[in-house]
Amino acid sequence: MPERWLEAKGFLLDMTGVLYDSYGLTGTAIPGSCEALQLLRQHHVPFRFVTNESTSDRQFLAMVLSTLGLQIDAQEIIAPAPQVVKIVRERGLRPFLLVKDTVLQEFAGLKTTNPNCVVLGDAQDDFSYENVNRAFSILMNLPKPVLLSMGCGRYYKETDGLKMDVGAYCKALEYACGIQAECCGKPDPRFFQMALDSLGLEADAVVMVGDDVRNDVNGAQRVGMRGVLVKTGKYRTGDEEHGERRPDAVMENLLEVVRMYLHST
Amino acid sequence: MPERWLEAKGFLLDMTGVLYDSYGLTGTAIPGSCEALQLLRQHHVPFRFVTNESTSDRQFLAMVLSTLGLQIDAQEIIAPAPQVVKIVRERGLRPFLLVKDTVLQEFAGLKTTNPNCVVLGDAQDDFSYENVNRAFSILMNLPKPVLLSMGCGRYYKETDGLKMDVGAYCKALEYACGIQAECCGKPDPRFFQMALDSLGLEADAVVMVGDDVRNDVNGAQRVGMRGVLVKTGKYRTGDEEHGERRPDAVMENLLEVVRMYLHST
Repeated sequence: MPERWLEAKGFLLDMTGVLYDSYGLTGTAIPGSCEALQLLRQHHVPFRFVTNESTSDRQFLAMVLSTLGLQIDAQEIIAPAPQVVKIVRERGLRPFLLVKDTVLQEFAGLKTTNPNCVVLGDAQDDFSYENVNRAFSILMNLPKPVLLSMGCGRYYKETDGLKMDVGAYCKALEYACGIQAECCGKPDPRFFQMALDSLGLEADAVVMVGDDVRNDVNGAQRVGMRGVLVKTGKYRTGDEEHGERRPDAVMENLLEVVRMYLHST
Repeated sequence: MPERWLEAKGFLLDMTGVLYDSYGLTGTAIPGSCEALQLLRQHHVPFRFVTNESTSDRQFLAMVLSTLGLQIDAQEIIAPAPQVVKIVRERGLRPFLLVKDTVLQEFAGLKTTNPNCVVLGDAQDDFSYENVNRAFSILMNLPKPVLLSMGCGRYYKETDGLKMDVGAYCKALEYACGIQAECCGKPDPRFFQMALDSLGLEADAVVMVGDDVRNDVNGAQRVGMRGVLVKTGKYRTGDEEHGERRPDAVMENLLEVVRMYLHST
């Protein structure tokens, strides 16, 4: 009897650590990931990319990946910024954007004067005391403070070492203001739903492939998808045991996942 | 029958919000506080100052207060920096100091090369992403990360508005590193014990006077002191109901506390 995940009709693919390893605004393709994407396209298997990347807009991200040999359309990328824009529009919010300039394009057209919410991205060097304190002051002056964070990661790895991620600054603001943020991106179920809507498939017909057992695999499983963990990117031996639930499969890399899937169908 | 706190033999006095309201490196004396100190000295009532101030050293703090008419000896001030220095020396630690230059004098003589712990103060503008990330990297590279924070306040008030306090950055590092910090200063029982040792009195013979029901009043009560809340500084109506225990007394200001005490003895 084949494994359940092999019966899926489509894929959601994490980007960093599955397609490529990043450093700064560029990176290196993970061996086999270009071929894996080609195989999925050749066999007309639908897929989307889901990422918590918030340092650059999707156009830029697609352009960077194309220089690594990964042919991706910006429209295939589901990122936290569009989810935040959706929330902001639905609720009529005016955000103060504590984000890098390189992602601002995603927020074009939003009203930002007289802000009534704060949006956090991975602002890196723009996380100055002045900027963080500005966000804090805005939140403290609101009767109902709204803090939207594009991911709640602890840290990530670059070639020159580990870097604090946006989640740390989110916790700082939560503590200072005595509030709870809304974490957009993975593993927020609304974020996975956006990706499923874009794919046009139900959760139980989709497999999520990622290198993070909690945010990728368990997050997807929680909304009814299958979750496959790959041993690339930030994967460390034994990670599959450290989530709230075991992955549906643990594979060497994306190419192995795709080959086994195509072989079984 | 007199209230129990009136039987005390000595006082611990909070500084900001009890003696003076601060802004930047200066401030304004709270009406009656100069007279209150003079009365205590005239009547030979022993006292010490306990503060979570970590932006400047005690010499500088005493000098600032003297310009406001408050005659204070730096030796009478119990601050988080000397507590941190004590811990660092006892454990043979080499701190990375994420603090303002104006408090560095307190740490003179400590070994800081090849750091094996991080000390956080209210670094204000020095809380750059680069500096905070440096602290993060040091902690992540230690087999047993030690993070000492000089106070864990959420925010404080300056004339130009509320400012995020060191506690927010402490939470950011705790989250990013997956560790628990040691909070020095109020309400750490070890900190109150340092103040009692300096005073040479047992806890049940001492009254703490402060404008913060949790850090000052409840913190002191927890180690066996009496705690009196004053309605100056950051006091807001009803604060006396919001602690884990009611203050032993609630008074208008420090002068009223001292007059009632002297009247009863």
